[in-house]
Amino acid sequence: MPRNQQILLDNRPQGQATADNFRLVVGDTPALQPGQVLVRHHYLSLDPYMRGRMDDSKSYAACQPLGQVMVGGTVGEVLESRHAAFAVGDQVVGMGGWQEYSVVDGDAPGALRRVDSTQVPLSHYLGAVGMPGATAWVGLVNIISPKAGETVVVSAASGAVGSAVGVLAKARGCRVVGIAGGPDKCRYVTGELGFDACIDHRAHGDLQSMSQALKQACPGGIDGYFENVGGYILDAVLLRANAFARVAVCGMISRYDGQSQPLLNPALILINRMKLEGFIGSEHMQFWPQALAELGQLVASGRLRPRESVAQGLAAAPEAFLGLLKGRNFGKQLVKLI
Amino acid sequence: MPRNQQILLDNRPQGQATADNFRLVVGDTPALQPGQVLVRHHYLSLDPYMRGRMDDSKSYAACQPLGQVMVGGTVGEVLESRHAAFAVGDQVVGMGGWQEYSVVDGDAPGALRRVDSTQVPLSHYLGAVGMPGATAWVGLVNIISPKAGETVVVSAASGAVGSAVGVLAKARGCRVVGIAGGPDKCRYVTGELGFDACIDHRAHGDLQSMSQALKQACPGGIDGYFENVGGYILDAVLLRANAFARVAVCGMISRYDGQSQPLLNPALILINRMKLEGFIGSEHMQFWPQALAELGQLVASGRLRPRESVAQGLAAAPEAFLGLLKGRNFGKQLVKLI
Repeated sequence: MPRNQQILLDNRPQGQATADNFRLVVGDTPALQPGQVLVRHHYLSLDPYMRGRMDDSKSYAACQPLGQVMVGGTVGEVLESRHAAFAVGDQVVGMGGWQEYSVVDGDAPGALRRVDSTQVPLSHYLGAVGMPGATAWVGLVNIISPKAGETVVVSAASGAVGSAVGVLAKARGCRVVGIAGGPDKCRYVTGELGFDACIDHRAHGDLQSMSQALKQACPGGIDGYFENVGGYILDAVLLRANAFARVAVCGMISRYDGQSQPLLNPALILINRMKLEGFIGSEHMQFWPQALAELGQLVASGRLRPRESVAQGLAAAPEAFLGLLKGRNFGKQLVKLI
Repeated sequence: MPRNQQILLDNRPQGQATADNFRLVVGDTPALQPGQVLVRHHYLSLDPYMRGRMDDSKSYAACQPLGQVMVGGTVGEVLESRHAAFAVGDQVVGMGGWQEYSVVDGDAPGALRRVDSTQVPLSHYLGAVGMPGATAWVGLVNIISPKAGETVVVSAASGAVGSAVGVLAKARGCRVVGIAGGPDKCRYVTGELGFDACIDHRAHGDLQSMSQALKQACPGGIDGYFENVGGYILDAVLLRANAFARVAVCGMISRYDGQSQPLLNPALILINRMKLEGFIGSEHMQFWPQALAELGQLVASGRLRPRESVAQGLAAAPEAFLGLLKGRNFGKQLVKLI
């Protein structure tokens, strides 16, 4: 059996997560039992939700046990199979975790999904045509439910979720305004993704400045907001929201590192008769086939051109993950494992 | 024509509203034009939304113009009619304002509604079987949508809206927990309205204490919250909310007097996958017939026994209104005008 590098959660963060919270170990992969499949991971997905799992506090996900392999989405190929539905060489998406190989029970529901890389590059099944894309679709379509002509704002707009939100909203005839960090990301958002405008939050680092920028970019007010970041940007959006605006709360990365940031004026929820709704994409799997079909077409047709930040080798995963929490990635953060 | 006492908005509040913001004047009622009806008001309704209208800032309602009669719901009798659909002696609900008489265009949609006081006392058409009751119904049924066995929490539970929310939720098989100010109100809420428990917020005046009280009163967590007050109680509810909990944001009386109070931990909206939705009952008039029919039956059958605080005479309206904003009323706040 191949030697298998793995990254474990060694200890829980005190405030900000650090590289010392993780530990790299090397083990063997166990021999396959009947019904099991050995997968060699090509890419590991790094996602903000992982930060929540590192804490021991209440979250929507079970917390990550100490001393065990960090949870994470992976895409790879079947190296060995004792399950009739999977053959050596099959390309598969799963939740293999922060390691080079995983042994998977082929019958576990949703554990392994075969994918086809002829139209869509394999890595995109961890991004635009995977969990982040489906998350974008569920929040936009089911919660914001935008009508043509409405204005939709998306934070973390150059990221895996945000880029898909924007392209899906453009496809529905909306004015789409992104928020991203830095001129490079903003250029990508308007130039390659086709958003109508993009606000650089580094140039608008406080409530008043962001509120002004939103006013300018959204002359008709804001009807929908896809929330990936939390903090003062949500406060600013509420100041520019139209009556009956909808906010899909998908992430609040700004608080993942411990500090909780208040919402300054919740009375605006009443004044604007707004809806704020938190959700996680994996709790709405019934919409994934429809979502992934639309996203696959948008990628194949070139309308959605996902960016990726790719770290090389498993040992680079902790630093890449910490960078993701600070917004240092540009697009979907991956770790290439082969 | 009769002499007509009226209360005008004289100037806007600087911070807290005061009696000096109002001015009492006496005028004549104009002669009726064809299609008009002269109504003598028996009761004037005082409601928290009026405080929002006194400000010049953005609100869901047009602001109250200076020098004009304060807006308000009224119930009374037709004294004179030049409209075929209304006869002298008819009992009618309308938006007559803070005055003893009003001249109403009988054709204006929703301006006057005939009511019957044989089963339901006339004053209740301004409370449980009027706008507050319909507001309770819309928020509970359309936003919280409680299932039997779920736990619903209601703030300002002894008030016109809160009492109706609780009785409607009990009728749907929920565990219902009220929050009210003082032991008398709590006794009424559990004893006469049949709530399962009531928390005295005066005995639990901070987040930690309220959160503990909610934990005790809601051993299965909170599935729905009908928000009438804002401030730390909403923070405490969020700490005890179950996954997929719904909050109907109907009022935030704690901020009407100027201070906006932050929501401490909006990330809980995501962690609990909650929905917070602001609404005002008058924007959902299509549900009123169904709502008022159910509420009328609950009142007629004695299951909903609304309390009223009745001030005597129009001149008492400003002080009664200021008391309402401070929670000094017990149940629906009315002014008796005859």
